[in-house]
Amino acid sequence: MTIPEQQLRDFTYSIFKSIGCPEDDAVLATDVLLSADLRGIDSHGVARLSGYVRLSSTGRLNPKPAIRVVHETPTTATVDGDGGLGLVVAPYAMDIALAKARQYGSGWVAIRNSNHFGIAAYHALKAVEQDMIGYAMTNASPLVAPTFSSERLLGTNPMCYAFPAGQYPPVVVDMATSAAANGKLEVAERLGKPIPEGWVLTNEGQATTDPTDLKKGGVLLPLGSDYAHSSHKGFGLSATVDILSGVLSGANYGPWVPPFVPYLQPLADQPGQGIGHFVGALRVDGFRPVADFKTNIDQWITRFKNAKRIDENQQVIIPGEPENLAMATRRTQGIPLAPAVWQDLHALATQFGIDLTPPHPPH
Amino acid sequence: MTIPEQQLRDFTYSIFKSIGCPEDDAVLATDVLLSADLRGIDSHGVARLSGYVRLSSTGRLNPKPAIRVVHETPTTATVDGDGGLGLVVAPYAMDIALAKARQYGSGWVAIRNSNHFGIAAYHALKAVEQDMIGYAMTNASPLVAPTFSSERLLGTNPMCYAFPAGQYPPVVVDMATSAAANGKLEVAERLGKPIPEGWVLTNEGQATTDPTDLKKGGVLLPLGSDYAHSSHKGFGLSATVDILSGVLSGANYGPWVPPFVPYLQPLADQPGQGIGHFVGALRVDGFRPVADFKTNIDQWITRFKNAKRIDENQQVIIPGEPENLAMATRRTQGIPLAPAVWQDLHALATQFGIDLTPPHPPH
Repeated sequence: MTIPEQQLRDFTYSIFKSIGCPEDDAVLATDVLLSADLRGIDSHGVARLSGYVRLSSTGRLNPKPAIRVVHETPTTATVDGDGGLGLVVAPYAMDIALAKARQYGSGWVAIRNSNHFGIAAYHALKAVEQDMIGYAMTNASPLVAPTFSSERLLGTNPMCYAFPAGQYPPVVVDMATSAAANGKLEVAERLGKPIPEGWVLTNEGQATTDPTDLKKGGVLLPLGSDYAHSSHKGFGLSATVDILSGVLSGANYGPWVPPFVPYLQPLADQPGQGIGHFVGALRVDGFRPVADFKTNIDQWITRFKNAKRIDENQQVIIPGEPENLAMATRRTQGIPLAPAVWQDLHALATQFGIDLTPPHPPH
Repeated sequence: MTIPEQQLRDFTYSIFKSIGCPEDDAVLATDVLLSADLRGIDSHGVARLSGYVRLSSTGRLNPKPAIRVVHETPTTATVDGDGGLGLVVAPYAMDIALAKARQYGSGWVAIRNSNHFGIAAYHALKAVEQDMIGYAMTNASPLVAPTFSSERLLGTNPMCYAFPAGQYPPVVVDMATSAAANGKLEVAERLGKPIPEGWVLTNEGQATTDPTDLKKGGVLLPLGSDYAHSSHKGFGLSATVDILSGVLSGANYGPWVPPFVPYLQPLADQPGQGIGHFVGALRVDGFRPVADFKTNIDQWITRFKNAKRIDENQQVIIPGEPENLAMATRRTQGIPLAPAVWQDLHALATQFGIDLTPPHPPH
């Protein structure tokens, strides 16, 4: 099932309005969510809409947050998201980082008391529009074990760096710090296929190729997969995201990060508030003229695209390139939805009495 | 062979003096190099001393650089290292970042026209001493291939994040963005042992377990090792280091980064100057009171140290913990040197007429 972007946008907006979001927040949350679907990151787009609705209905998400700055220097700030949608809180924080960067060269904002913020790239790319380098990261519900453990202590904790380019689209490194994203397990399970060793351990810490072992209490492995292949580095990156997003902001961290799914309860004795993010912006012209940077980054991209191939049919992929290609296609041809997501949206349509597929206006 | 710290320090200082470094620079360069030996990162300490000497003798390293700021905003700067030792240039740049952070909350410096800067952790830890979060990264001679290629286009490009703690030593994530460091291959070669698949490809792009294949024109793989285990993420991290260190500063990048070994010539038509680094500092109290942060990070460390173990005899290792343990031991018991390094230092001693092992003073 493929649905035109505008139709999916209108529907998503109506759902956010229905759970009590103010007008502007509903527009913004929709834009963040749709950016994932447009960029081909299907796991982080409207597939999560019903999750936000359920979190809201259990009172663990505040649709009308009073987001505020609680601590500040010229180039740093901490934002309290008041339990709001991360889709709204993170852009608020990024706007502060951008304003600070415009004035002082750089700006950095840690965010607490928030919820899932969509794709990190959305937030980092706001900096790129202003010829800045964008940073965005977030901690998340615990699913990943540190090296030498089989305990869920870290989220997939993505980090994103986005760089403006000249003739090319931006270079966007947006990556979970785990060896594999949860979405890849779901695909394997749906197809009844085994997963590679190095993605998941059972809850006893055994290697497995069964994609359902995660649901049975297993863990995702950090990038690197095992100690011989430097999983301690993936753990170190995930720890960095957790400390900057959770510890520095006063949010929860490690196993205390509240789960996204409403049927799991947060741990008692939480050390912080909600989940945490960290965003930032660096002016390119704080270091050298933008035109010089863009000339060089274009040369960087060209050189890597032309790298010697192992397989003649597979060239080197520049970070962000697949997402840019997906966006070009989906903007014109619509957004394909998996059957489960389609059913999910239909259920929301029924629940809130909103038409998911209104009749097309005549051309 | 084990040598007391002070003896190795005196010798190293004398060598830097002998190649023409000013007094203060020789002391500083020695401190950076010895910090690697003390922390157990043997590949980045005095094992490289003869390499710096050879670079200097071929005129590719300037022992008396006029390091200067060439571009600046309140919180950003670009430093030209004038072809000096990275061991001296990077601390100069980090001092600027720290001064900016003290005044504005954060400080970021890109460095061009430099050379190998030792271990990234040395530079990042300077921020931790002032209750700041430290960043340090550098690009390096090309040895690593991007995903889907077998061409040497990236260095092992390390990134380091260092966080102050309370009762514990700092959390220090200092990692090459390749699956394995070059030093591990050298150990395997010396022992005549195979390496795991996923560290190296031959120059035709074939998987290999032969540690000598790198020297025969092969490549190191990015963290993640192969596409199924997300080597594109390791590539993305390495690209991030290369762009921040090389493209943003006006240094060389990708395959143009000049080799550390003097018998390899830099490529012609270099797009920038020397190799590049990127350092930064964020004040913890730019976000929340330092005491609150330290309370929480101590809890973070305690929780991860007590994670459920897979092997009862192997607990989770906090990033930076092995280096702190090595430092405690080596400060009191001396620094063990591999036979090849010992011979190397003896050759330098002979070359410059400096006593490597002077008679111990009577106690």
